[in-house]
Amino acid sequence: MTSIPISDKTLGVNFTDANEATILVWAPEAESMDLILHHQQQAVPLTRIDYGYWSLETPLLQPGDRYLFRINGKNEFPDPASLSQPDGVHGASEALRLTDFEWDDQAWTNPKLDDYIFYEIHTGTFTNEGTFEALEQKLDYLHELGITAIELMPLAQFPGTRNWGYDGVFPYAVQHSYGGAHGLQRLVNACHQRQIAVVLDVVYNHLGPEGNYLGQFGPYINPKYYTPWGGAINFDDAWSDGVRQFVIENVLMWFRDFHIDALRLDAVHALKDFGPVHILQDIRRCTDELMAQTGQRHYLIAELDLNDNKYIAPLEKGGYGLDAQWIDEFHHALRVTAGGERTGYYTDFEGISHLAKAYTDAFVFSGQFSNHRKRFFGTRVDDNPGQQFIVFSQNHDQIGNRMLGERSSQLMSFEMQKTMAAAVILSPFLPFLFMGEEWSEPHPFLYFADHSDPELTQAVRQGRKKEFAAFHAIGEAPDPFSLESYALSKPQWELLTQTPHQQMFQYYKKLIALRKTQPALRHLNRRQLSVKVYAEAETLI
Amino acid sequence: MTSIPISDKTLGVNFTDANEATILVWAPEAESMDLILHHQQQAVPLTRIDYGYWSLETPLLQPGDRYLFRINGKNEFPDPASLSQPDGVHGASEALRLTDFEWDDQAWTNPKLDDYIFYEIHTGTFTNEGTFEALEQKLDYLHELGITAIELMPLAQFPGTRNWGYDGVFPYAVQHSYGGAHGLQRLVNACHQRQIAVVLDVVYNHLGPEGNYLGQFGPYINPKYYTPWGGAINFDDAWSDGVRQFVIENVLMWFRDFHIDALRLDAVHALKDFGPVHILQDIRRCTDELMAQTGQRHYLIAELDLNDNKYIAPLEKGGYGLDAQWIDEFHHALRVTAGGERTGYYTDFEGISHLAKAYTDAFVFSGQFSNHRKRFFGTRVDDNPGQQFIVFSQNHDQIGNRMLGERSSQLMSFEMQKTMAAAVILSPFLPFLFMGEEWSEPHPFLYFADHSDPELTQAVRQGRKKEFAAFHAIGEAPDPFSLESYALSKPQWELLTQTPHQQMFQYYKKLIALRKTQPALRHLNRRQLSVKVYAEAETLI
Repeated sequence: MTSIPISDKTLGVNFTDANEATILVWAPEAESMDLILHHQQQAVPLTRIDYGYWSLETPLLQPGDRYLFRINGKNEFPDPASLSQPDGVHGASEALRLTDFEWDDQAWTNPKLDDYIFYEIHTGTFTNEGTFEALEQKLDYLHELGITAIELMPLAQFPGTRNWGYDGVFPYAVQHSYGGAHGLQRLVNACHQRQIAVVLDVVYNHLGPEGNYLGQFGPYINPKYYTPWGGAINFDDAWSDGVRQFVIENVLMWFRDFHIDALRLDAVHALKDFGPVHILQDIRRCTDELMAQTGQRHYLIAELDLNDNKYIAPLEKGGYGLDAQWIDEFHHALRVTAGGERTGYYTDFEGISHLAKAYTDAFVFSGQFSNHRKRFFGTRVDDNPGQQFIVFSQNHDQIGNRMLGERSSQLMSFEMQKTMAAAVILSPFLPFLFMGEEWSEPHPFLYFADHSDPELTQAVRQGRKKEFAAFHAIGEAPDPFSLESYALSKPQWELLTQTPHQQMFQYYKKLIALRKTQPALRHLNRRQLSVKVYAEAETLI
Repeated sequence: MTSIPISDKTLGVNFTDANEATILVWAPEAESMDLILHHQQQAVPLTRIDYGYWSLETPLLQPGDRYLFRINGKNEFPDPASLSQPDGVHGASEALRLTDFEWDDQAWTNPKLDDYIFYEIHTGTFTNEGTFEALEQKLDYLHELGITAIELMPLAQFPGTRNWGYDGVFPYAVQHSYGGAHGLQRLVNACHQRQIAVVLDVVYNHLGPEGNYLGQFGPYINPKYYTPWGGAINFDDAWSDGVRQFVIENVLMWFRDFHIDALRLDAVHALKDFGPVHILQDIRRCTDELMAQTGQRHYLIAELDLNDNKYIAPLEKGGYGLDAQWIDEFHHALRVTAGGERTGYYTDFEGISHLAKAYTDAFVFSGQFSNHRKRFFGTRVDDNPGQQFIVFSQNHDQIGNRMLGERSSQLMSFEMQKTMAAAVILSPFLPFLFMGEEWSEPHPFLYFADHSDPELTQAVRQGRKKEFAAFHAIGEAPDPFSLESYALSKPQWELLTQTPHQQMFQYYKKLIALRKTQPALRHLNRRQLSVKVYAEAETLI
């Protein structure tokens, strides 16, 4: 691979101190490449340099200007590394100068991962306004609750106005309706002033189904591997170096230019890479180089469904070097113990004995046969400390992938919700909450999207129907494309002052305070943990 | 994974000391399974046991009997782990008792890999008879030549009567027309008595296109990965444990029951396995267990096109633990240096400077950009000794994948052939010859096959045409399905006594003797090697 620039973003449009735009576009099989200055109706040719890149320095493009790239003298497309798409995914890109933001968080130090208590937020539904600005108004509340990190669901510009974020097609552009790049910078700055870390959910395993123009520039997709969302991102085939640089520069941008404290890498089991250096190893190495340069800590956290210890093993042991990973299995065991249904992937889970195994071993499946997966599954992680694992009783997926999007509040008694909260917050792992669970929000969190292509809309509806069949769900799924589904998914802040919601909030607050003040709870050494199962009484001690 | 039995084969049909057949078949989604005793017209039901296996002990099936399995009370198929297919791939299986063979090689010790000088043989064309028995008649000749190991192209039962071997569909059955299982045992026994090791080429990356009934029994194929030969073998998806056991038991069978000294694993870059333990790591581990039990050494050698050092790194360093690998790049650099054409994958190769790099670094591409692959390619292997790499100036692929199948004898001068022979045999790697090159055999080695399905025949013809287009080959390819292509591919032993063939034979014999007697040549430490390039004179010293 070409060496990755650590201290500055090079892809897309950047500006010199003299306000000259330096432009770098990767399009290895293009014959020609022009910058189209949208308003001036002017075209400026780029020069082909090594390894499929095209380059230009020009004073003609200034921050705030709209632009496109014209490939082979024919069609014009937005910038794959666009920082801003004010007119949506099909519109022109807007040049931004990221370094304009004046940071005020010099006193901030990213805490040890041990101290993270995550709070997951979908920016569009967390507040009525659905913006970073409105989110900022809630930071004092979150500080009072006691969580130490917010985790923002993906922010990459997505098609339409409503989306969970996993359909993003501009990995460098912050969703414009949320407040764009500068809005995010302001939010992170405000979080750091309240001693709240910011985790960003990023998606490097697929690209959204609408408005993805990356394929016009180069082979971002490798059709040789299958993922549930189509072709995999091309990390090991012809021209993969350009794709790898695109992803790694993106990681570095969030850390360096947005002061993001940790990334939550979506579904890394779908990063298909048989090359000698796995893309996650390269991301780790470059992140380490950045940290050495800046002196700031940054964490790499994976969503991972493989129970494979090499992902969280250090590079020097041949691992992928990730700091931590989610354990969905803790959730599944907890839900089944709490009396939840046992269809779909829950079929593999017994009640309290599996929950006990999750407490002691992190992975419930550490080598046994899984009837759901139809294979022996998992490795042991005895040497990995508790802060390498993130646990939850709810998250966007576990709620929103239910047909009716019910939170625990609609499925469990008030007392059971409290028990589950304690099971998570007092666990020997890192606890993770989903927005609103702390006041037992009764609204669902539904799947919602907003595509302009009717065929795609229909395909998504069909796909979800099929998915629910595995869970033997009965009845009609709410329409993901209706405005109601979106509106219904907003937590109701007004409940917070009411009974019993205020009581639940106080309870969460106390649990969090307890975790923070009791050394035994903060010491995440599972080897000192003893779990006793009293199966008849359904009790763990 | 279930634990793999090391000391005995369990899959298919085996016999107890009391001559009772113990039968084990894997068919995880079958509803019922019957043993069909072919001649008795009798059906005996098997019992379902754990993890998709079906089991039976019966005195009714005896060595020499034909049998089939009936799935779900409907169709009857030969045994996936059949040891013998006397009536071809579509016929019934024959029960064999492998342990009947009386070995006479107790004095044999598999030499260190350092001492291996390989000689590749296609059993069907090596002699007029095309049998193990006829091959055995040539062992004294091979001993005189001085090679220390024969490498047999794949022997798994293939469709029709003529095949390179890579279309095999019964990985446990030795091609019946060659002499079957007992014939191979006799041959290995005879080799060992002449101090010749036996290497067997085995294919675990795909199954042949005709007569593959394995899919009737279970998901041997994982359609989520693409290989040039169709879906990949299922090493990491649902029910993959049964497939893994099928492959690992096959490895162990060759070593334990056939006394094979080393396996040449075909195209391991196409073994797609994202599980926590790569199938090659499992093969290594089980091979180590077998060696510990028997006290005999066995080697695992890979054909590998990834230039990725983890394949030949030890398990304890996170590697896949293979003993050695082919380096095609040495061949490519040598051919270009010798004035060969520079189309197809040769476009990446310069002449003598790349040959010099192969001598010092083993991999020509150890991180540079490859124009042919369109990516940065390769890792360094500075810590790996010479005996981990196998080099050649010709092999079945490099000859037979040419449209006209020309050996070097038809492409290079007599003197150049001698230079190339010296470059290989005196290299700091393990040398590898292709049958007949030692007497400058002028006959080609063509691609040949024999399918009963006309559509498949046509598809193979088309596929080869397309392949040759990349090499800008001109003219009509010989028909792989003609008897002439097969007959023409047989080396002409009668030439051996004639001029200049006898001279070439004597030259090879001397080079091999030189390698064996000069300690400097046998000491495969590349760190003590100094290569100087005199580019103008096209000379390496």
